Amino acid sequence: MKLAVVGVGLIGGSFALALKQAKAVSHVVGVGRNAANLKVALERGIIDSIAPDPAAAARGADLILISTPVAQFPAVLASLADAKGVITDGGSTKRDVIAAARKALGTRISQFVPAHPIAGAEKSGAAAASAELFRGRRVVLTPLEENSKQDTSKVEDAWKSCGARVSRMDAEEHDAVLAAVSHLPHLLAFALVHEVAGRGDSAQLFGYAAGGFRDFTRIASSHPEMWRDICVANRDRLLDEVSRFSAKLEDVRRLLNNPVELEKLFAEARAARDEWIRSS
Amino acid sequence: MKLAVVGVGLIGGSFALALKQAKAVSHVVGVGRNAANLKVALERGIIDSIAPDPAAAARGADLILISTPVAQFPAVLASLADAKGVITDGGSTKRDVIAAARKALGTRISQFVPAHPIAGAEKSGAAAASAELFRGRRVVLTPLEENSKQDTSKVEDAWKSCGARVSRMDAEEHDAVLAAVSHLPHLLAFALVHEVAGRGDSAQLFGYAAGGFRDFTRIASSHPEMWRDICVANRDRLLDEVSRFSAKLEDVRRLLNNPVELEKLFAEARAARDEWIRSS
Repeated sequence: MKLAVVGVGLIGGSFALALKQAKAVSHVVGVGRNAANLKVALERGIIDSIAPDPAAAARGADLILISTPVAQFPAVLASLADAKGVITDGGSTKRDVIAAARKALGTRISQFVPAHPIAGAEKSGAAAASAELFRGRRVVLTPLEENSKQDTSKVEDAWKSCGARVSRMDAEEHDAVLAAVSHLPHLLAFALVHEVAGRGDSAQLFGYAAGGFRDFTRIASSHPEMWRDICVANRDRLLDEVSRFSAKLEDVRRLLNNPVELEKLFAEARAARDEWIRSS
Repeated sequence: MKLAVVGVGLIGGSFALALKQAKAVSHVVGVGRNAANLKVALERGIIDSIAPDPAAAARGADLILISTPVAQFPAVLASLADAKGVITDGGSTKRDVIAAARKALGTRISQFVPAHPIAGAEKSGAAAASAELFRGRRVVLTPLEENSKQDTSKVEDAWKSCGARVSRMDAEEHDAVLAAVSHLPHLLAFALVHEVAGRGDSAQLFGYAAGGFRDFTRIASSHPEMWRDICVANRDRLLDEVSRFSAKLEDVRRLLNNPVELEKLFAEARAARDEWIRSS
């Protein structure tokens, strides 16, 4: 099987490495904007060759993964108009990606099987790619009515070969769920770090920040362009989540006057999180 | 040296273990509300004996550490009216603790050297105590005008024996700094988990939460009573921080309409965090 990877970053690079380790692919061709990054990908054996553009990469490929920031999907998909292989993606939002695919591929939309590996890291680029990134992690497929069972299985099997747990969901539902448990936390972490960093005494503040702050803000070291695209693409759902969170923060703020209820809220949050950790 | 620990939890237990490992104490007496926890502390060799109350524990002690949740300090300090040793604490807030000490100790306030080890964990109790908890971590002393150089040094030396990096700060400044980089993040993490946990579809939401959510919310597994007390004690500073953060979140929300500026903000936050991680 020949795999084409458009955007050989953390996700695309890890997908290629995992499939190579599983001997599920024989040749990987990579394409991307950043020549230095592609060189790293070649040197690390993530890809076997470099193509000048997505159309060239897709030629003869059985499977094409688009793993660029989501705002680039319309252009990438447009250049895949003649691709023969199954096209899939690693985008963190699905409604916008599907809309872009429908527009670009038209009647060939059945070739596109949308997917989202829920596995990130604050590191990005081919240098950070790892064959183990997806092991035990969830991958959500949001298949289209037009997808054939065979094409959907091809994508599902590829992710299973990476060690991922694959499930299926509606694209609307996917974007709502991810807004709550991924996109909002990223926004909050970026906001907190930006707030602290913008103060006159930021050096002192960071000087006394400890492990709690480090873990809370880990996702604020994520890729800015990728997260810009996610936030813009999923704006409506994210706005809902910001509103819900702001209302809850206002509740908590008021409870600073009510120690009994404040402790109850903290205890409920801890119990819910501990239960989640235990069961996951 | 004989050490008395009032509240043998994560902080008090780790302090005792670290001083024992450094051979800086010969006997540790513990006192606390929870008999089962004290039994664990005895079994683990954290303490050598149990006292029925703080007054009894303090008898003959050279150093007395108060490491209960801060709302218990007024009662604990009142019961230490006859203590002869140097009294210090591990409270995460300093203005309220100092006010309580002044009230309880009166003219003997010079005996009290306030301190805050900036080292926590989401685990609590003697079972979670570790001799290594403070290694390389910061401990802030907020000494009083009345403290003798000798008493302050005694407390400083004890923390240095635990492997901590000791610095000094004004209590006002301490509470402002910690509100920004510790108390606010805890409040945000509790709020986010509580928001998600309270929804009808919380099981599904948690089901798709991944590593980013796990790290972001780690501090929401912290001790509810301890954090209730911190938030109430430092309420004014925490309200300032909630206001600042809410204003920043509103900025970010508006930037969901402005991809260029949104990416800039994300990039600035990432750069500030990465620089902090590099330098710390």
